Amino acid sequence: MALHGRAVAAALDDTDPLRAFRHRFVVAPDNLIYLDGNSLGRLPRDTPARLEDVVWNQWGERLIRGWSEGWMELPRTIGDRLGESLLGAAPGQVAVADSTTVCFYKLAGAALAAAGPGRSEIVADVDNFPTDRYVLESLAAERGLTIRWIEADPYSGPTVDEVAAVVSERTALVTFSQVSYRSAYIVPTREISALAHDAGAMALWDLSHSAGAIPISLDGDGVDLAVGCTYKYLNGGPGAPAFLYVRSEHQERLRQPIWGWLGRRDPFAMEPGYVPGEGISAMLSGTPPVLGLTAAAVGIDLVIEAGIEAIRSKSSSLTGYAIELIDGALAPLGCSVGSPRAATLRGSHVALVHPDARELSRRLIAGGVIVDFRTPDVIRLGLSPLTTRFTDVFDGVDRVRRLLS
Amino acid sequence: MALHGRAVAAALDDTDPLRAFRHRFVVAPDNLIYLDGNSLGRLPRDTPARLEDVVWNQWGERLIRGWSEGWMELPRTIGDRLGESLLGAAPGQVAVADSTTVCFYKLAGAALAAAGPGRSEIVADVDNFPTDRYVLESLAAERGLTIRWIEADPYSGPTVDEVAAVVSERTALVTFSQVSYRSAYIVPTREISALAHDAGAMALWDLSHSAGAIPISLDGDGVDLAVGCTYKYLNGGPGAPAFLYVRSEHQERLRQPIWGWLGRRDPFAMEPGYVPGEGISAMLSGTPPVLGLTAAAVGIDLVIEAGIEAIRSKSSSLTGYAIELIDGALAPLGCSVGSPRAATLRGSHVALVHPDARELSRRLIAGGVIVDFRTPDVIRLGLSPLTTRFTDVFDGVDRVRRLLS
Repeated sequence: MALHGRAVAAALDDTDPLRAFRHRFVVAPDNLIYLDGNSLGRLPRDTPARLEDVVWNQWGERLIRGWSEGWMELPRTIGDRLGESLLGAAPGQVAVADSTTVCFYKLAGAALAAAGPGRSEIVADVDNFPTDRYVLESLAAERGLTIRWIEADPYSGPTVDEVAAVVSERTALVTFSQVSYRSAYIVPTREISALAHDAGAMALWDLSHSAGAIPISLDGDGVDLAVGCTYKYLNGGPGAPAFLYVRSEHQERLRQPIWGWLGRRDPFAMEPGYVPGEGISAMLSGTPPVLGLTAAAVGIDLVIEAGIEAIRSKSSSLTGYAIELIDGALAPLGCSVGSPRAATLRGSHVALVHPDARELSRRLIAGGVIVDFRTPDVIRLGLSPLTTRFTDVFDGVDRVRRLLS
Repeated sequence: MALHGRAVAAALDDTDPLRAFRHRFVVAPDNLIYLDGNSLGRLPRDTPARLEDVVWNQWGERLIRGWSEGWMELPRTIGDRLGESLLGAAPGQVAVADSTTVCFYKLAGAALAAAGPGRSEIVADVDNFPTDRYVLESLAAERGLTIRWIEADPYSGPTVDEVAAVVSERTALVTFSQVSYRSAYIVPTREISALAHDAGAMALWDLSHSAGAIPISLDGDGVDLAVGCTYKYLNGGPGAPAFLYVRSEHQERLRQPIWGWLGRRDPFAMEPGYVPGEGISAMLSGTPPVLGLTAAAVGIDLVIEAGIEAIRSKSSSLTGYAIELIDGALAPLGCSVGSPRAATLRGSHVALVHPDARELSRRLIAGGVIVDFRTPDVIRLGLSPLTTRFTDVFDGVDRVRRLLS
């Protein structure tokens, strides 16, 4: 028996206001059903030409002069663009450099170093993205701190009440992913940041699964610190540099642990003694990765051009449609939805829960439906609004149905 | 009056066994005299095509599958190639990732954490490259350690005697650049590493100005730890990822401070609790920067192809020739040589000392002779053996002469 209704999906594609953006990306081979843009975004068509320009004309011909002709400012110029258009951050608070892991280490380290006496606890959840959890463990081990792990529902995420129950006058840092990497649950950013502040602690958010997928208001939500990656919904390419945000009012006081030359005031004076640079530049450490930054900028600009409100609107429709199909066609086959049913609480992927998720995802990938598996029982359907079609969702779910039938 | 002897330089170019390698790089515009390969190496001709292949065919078409088709191993595969051919390091000890600053922070942090009780001192020199000095300051501040700064001769570098005078049973870590960034002095690696060991300390070397320029024997010289950059003599591109080396026998015991998911055993299990990965992979933290790694590999392979002995031989000739010209033509104009006169003690650049070095370098660059200035009075003539011609040295020195005449 076939799954009915592909015509509905095709009609949704036809009236999709963002449909033209798919052609701004490389989508070959066209029969690939790519539902993993939440892990690695597709290649923007403009990226190769931009890289070629930077490689041939800047590195090739301008050589070392490139550093005084824009390269040195890339972490901050790209950061400002990203911050203003997609993160709700006024200029001077965002920089792009290093990996998400290193950015997270720097900001968590800075927050912990600035915490008052007696503040020996970090509040986090057991389902935060692994690299964040491991970094917290390293900082806690090094500094003799305790992590208060919240065991949240793995198919949603930490609630305000759960956080309130563990935050106290001993808390130094409260940290979560804004959108859960497994369930896509949107953690209440403003409320939890306020809880942290009420207790005298700082809030650090990982935006890896929210940047480019949902509207973000770092300034407005009272966020102290944030990091995120640019290779998922921002389409920056494999291992693209990450970004970090430090709220203006904290920049003077916070000091990150990796004092490199590019974080120092007047780095080329090469003087003795580290003195932090102005504003967000004090959060930098090493030489900016120019090729990675170039590709990241193209991906970010494309998201800015499409507009985050339009992206969010399509994202909600795509994930809602996926849930509808799962409920109708896959629930009788032993599948369930491991993501919030309320669109306002859901990021841009859907967790499809099945006991044999690992084997199922392997077979899906072998058959050209690219998803990913997350332990113990989740297949993530990542629906990247600029490139994923409703017919892709339909075809992907239909493939699952056929494999399970 | 003209500087005589350009014919000599031309003859040296004609008989240069490496002359064909210049054409493996982009050398347009041809009238540019580029004497700054020690800061940013030129663009290999193969790099754009390799990047294009990875961008279009891997990122564009393979998408997330690229991670299981080679990307994930890049830090170690490139590291092994670099290690075996250019660093004198058996496989499994080198990884390429992060910036030099972050790599230096990790390894210095690991060494300090492993030091025995009472070992509260770091031995370093005031003229080590700034980012290394600043990182040491951050680690010392964080851990309550003291840095014993050696004030070495700025036109050479720290001597064995100077190091011996400060190393003691309180020393945790001894760290220097193998080739001084200002003077090009080659610090006696084996002897100083042995001094550190005799005192029960570890030795960490920064190879940024030696990798790809001089033969290096990390295993043979008893080096414990090393880092270095790939964008100078290794031609990896602006801000290319750095490398780190951890001697096999230390890998089990040392633990670096930034516990990211890619340093964990079986990262995709995403399990609770950090457990260090096998061998050198425990030194990794975040997602590998694929574009930067791709370009770095091309530059490294080109150096391997040319052979480090041939490179070293030409490098000694180039720097010796530059010194000869400075002595003959520039000494009467107030210049002196700020690099070792013995070729065996000299890396691949020459420090030209002049009281107005800053202004002079500005005028040289404006006129198409690309050098760099290092405070307070040094112009570095970086002579990259694969791309710098003897006639470039001649023309560069002649330009200095004309500006000073």
